[in-house]
Amino acid sequence: MSVRFYNALILTMETDSVIGGEIWTDNDKISYVGPAKDTQGISFDREIDCKGNLLMPGLKDAHTHTAMVFARSLADDLTLDDWLHKAIFPREAKLGDEHIYTFSKLGFAEYLKGGITSCFDMYFNPVFASKAAIETGFRYVFCGSVNDFGGIDRLEDEYIRYNSIDPLISYKLGFHAEYTTSKEIMQTISEISHKHEAPVFAHISETKAEVEGCIARYGMTPPKLFDSLGLYDFGGGGFHCVWFDDEDMEIYKNRGLYAVFNACSNLKLASGIAPVSRFENMGIPTAIGTDGAGSNNALDMFREMYLDNVMSNIADNKACSIPPFKTLKAATSTGALCMGLDDCDTLKEGKQADIIMIDMNSPCMQPVNNIPANLVYSGNPGIVCMTMIAGRILYEDGNFTTIDIDEVIKDSNRLLKEIL
Amino acid sequence: MSVRFYNALILTMETDSVIGGEIWTDNDKISYVGPAKDTQGISFDREIDCKGNLLMPGLKDAHTHTAMVFARSLADDLTLDDWLHKAIFPREAKLGDEHIYTFSKLGFAEYLKGGITSCFDMYFNPVFASKAAIETGFRYVFCGSVNDFGGIDRLEDEYIRYNSIDPLISYKLGFHAEYTTSKEIMQTISEISHKHEAPVFAHISETKAEVEGCIARYGMTPPKLFDSLGLYDFGGGGFHCVWFDDEDMEIYKNRGLYAVFNACSNLKLASGIAPVSRFENMGIPTAIGTDGAGSNNALDMFREMYLDNVMSNIADNKACSIPPFKTLKAATSTGALCMGLDDCDTLKEGKQADIIMIDMNSPCMQPVNNIPANLVYSGNPGIVCMTMIAGRILYEDGNFTTIDIDEVIKDSNRLLKEIL
Repeated sequence: MSVRFYNALILTMETDSVIGGEIWTDNDKISYVGPAKDTQGISFDREIDCKGNLLMPGLKDAHTHTAMVFARSLADDLTLDDWLHKAIFPREAKLGDEHIYTFSKLGFAEYLKGGITSCFDMYFNPVFASKAAIETGFRYVFCGSVNDFGGIDRLEDEYIRYNSIDPLISYKLGFHAEYTTSKEIMQTISEISHKHEAPVFAHISETKAEVEGCIARYGMTPPKLFDSLGLYDFGGGGFHCVWFDDEDMEIYKNRGLYAVFNACSNLKLASGIAPVSRFENMGIPTAIGTDGAGSNNALDMFREMYLDNVMSNIADNKACSIPPFKTLKAATSTGALCMGLDDCDTLKEGKQADIIMIDMNSPCMQPVNNIPANLVYSGNPGIVCMTMIAGRILYEDGNFTTIDIDEVIKDSNRLLKEIL
Repeated sequence: MSVRFYNALILTMETDSVIGGEIWTDNDKISYVGPAKDTQGISFDREIDCKGNLLMPGLKDAHTHTAMVFARSLADDLTLDDWLHKAIFPREAKLGDEHIYTFSKLGFAEYLKGGITSCFDMYFNPVFASKAAIETGFRYVFCGSVNDFGGIDRLEDEYIRYNSIDPLISYKLGFHAEYTTSKEIMQTISEISHKHEAPVFAHISETKAEVEGCIARYGMTPPKLFDSLGLYDFGGGGFHCVWFDDEDMEIYKNRGLYAVFNACSNLKLASGIAPVSRFENMGIPTAIGTDGAGSNNALDMFREMYLDNVMSNIADNKACSIPPFKTLKAATSTGALCMGLDDCDTLKEGKQADIIMIDMNSPCMQPVNNIPANLVYSGNPGIVCMTMIAGRILYEDGNFTTIDIDEVIKDSNRLLKEIL
């Protein structure tokens, strides 16, 4: 499959400028990005007149629990601890293969409609999550979710298997969090990390209570504990990063670890406001994720970018504490690098063709004073008119090309009833 | 024009339940809401199979400055005071009739696409704003924007004229804010309010500096000052309401005044977090507005509902500080009452047909655990598939029926260049 997009505005994310021109794709890769070019002698399977719409790299959801869409609006009135133990864990215990498969597809549909081309998914049952991803054509990075209830026995096998099963699928070592994982298990994960020279990810310092609990148990904060266990010797990072002190940040900076922020979930669960600008100012690489639909409740990277940015204004008592282009970078290129997708970060010849098109006729994108600012401050999933992953168009003008959305919705509601 | 919507889910906002059934409209009014009903002998101009989609009252944007779309992404890095004086006022001084007309139309398009059926618009030049509204078919409530630079001489005439010009147009007394309006002018507005027994609205206690300035000038907070001047003797309310103390709230409660919140703008300009739940718990009627696109930067009531709700969790350190149905009520029925649109608040026989349709096949609206919660926590403008005002469908499946969006966007960018 080869596609020529012409008459486009292009934000490559290599720089902050928007150029006019074309993008060509050849199979899964980008074969040309630049000004309008002579196509004589070249044939494409499809030529798309973008009519001045904007092409940019797909958004990268760098922390989520996709199949948790079942928990959307299920228990909105509980704090993190009660929410996990009373509303979520008992239902998750009932999730079978078909649940994971179907709820994952529903989540992928929400990602595609909102311009998200890959997700860093901490959940279980990679067999059926990856089956759903491969069928959809969605780029899926699995994050290990080991905790005291299970997962450690399978971690290394899964790591090997899901890093070679399909070009769309990859797997990173990970565990749920300090407060759900014993020291022995964390040590075993550290050994696996050392053996494979692989980065490790986990929820970290999401609530104040979590940090206090960790200090009570180990005499140090989660980042210091993880570092002392050698979990960060080959990189990785943490999700949420709300309650970091200066020394925690130094560890992230010195180790080149990725801080992944989840502003919506942290607000909704009243967990706190992450000091995003302090991370940015220290030069720590930052990414953005939606967290699961049970605690957000949408898989909407536009709302996430907005909040990631404007919450810093309140935290710092300063307008424009973070320039919008930095936020856009976290949500696209740095997010890709965090997930190990080194060839999905920007639009450039030879990179993967993970491209979205933004409808510039959306009133909220006009007039044009500053396109990156419009995207961060005024965007919403409704402005996305095309989502391509690995050179395949999976969503276009309201329609999914690989997902039967009516069927997925019908199945989701039937399967939901089984676990309530 | 008469329309029959059938096979619908309906959230009337008379109660919090979602029913299955039909809505019929006859000219500008709703003629039936209820279960499927025999249509024999009745003919409609159009019958729409809703295919299980949701009908609900249109969202009411209870505080905005519509034509300020020109300032979207224009100066995102300034605090309120600098933003007003350096970025906004100099440009506003250059706004002519065509600017107001065209920028208003662009704003109306954004409202319609996002399910907003009326706005409470504090801006100037009602001649050309109302011309744009009438041509569009948009329900437009003008709020006087008197300040020391002008407006007081025209206020009473405009009040009379724009309350009788067209069924879609109405006008409320209002002034910009204490810090931009002299005591003499406020006293004159109070006299006009008493003469017409009319409510009065203004920006109020948006920033800490504003409240401190008012105390320095008058020895009291803005709500106490306005009350002492008789401005609240016939009701009304305030926009933003971020820095209210207990006595300020008592005034609002005792006078039945409307507190209109603008969470996005307050975050973006680092103005603060309004104590929304305290207003709610005291029984003060609350509404929600986007503020202008210069400081938000979107005219997006879904994002506004989300933030109005979840920011209270952080402010109160409590998950679900405000039940989502309360937020939905503020954004629909109470918003309508705040603006004086007593017949646009709910879906009921005899009320105005200001109805929106939500695409329940949007992945973010599924599965269905709780529809009001899905709307508040997971909604975005992209889920709106139809917007009807006064019985006329103005937006449907991506298309505007009364706005030439290509032309409006072209004109907006041309006119923007003139004022930069």
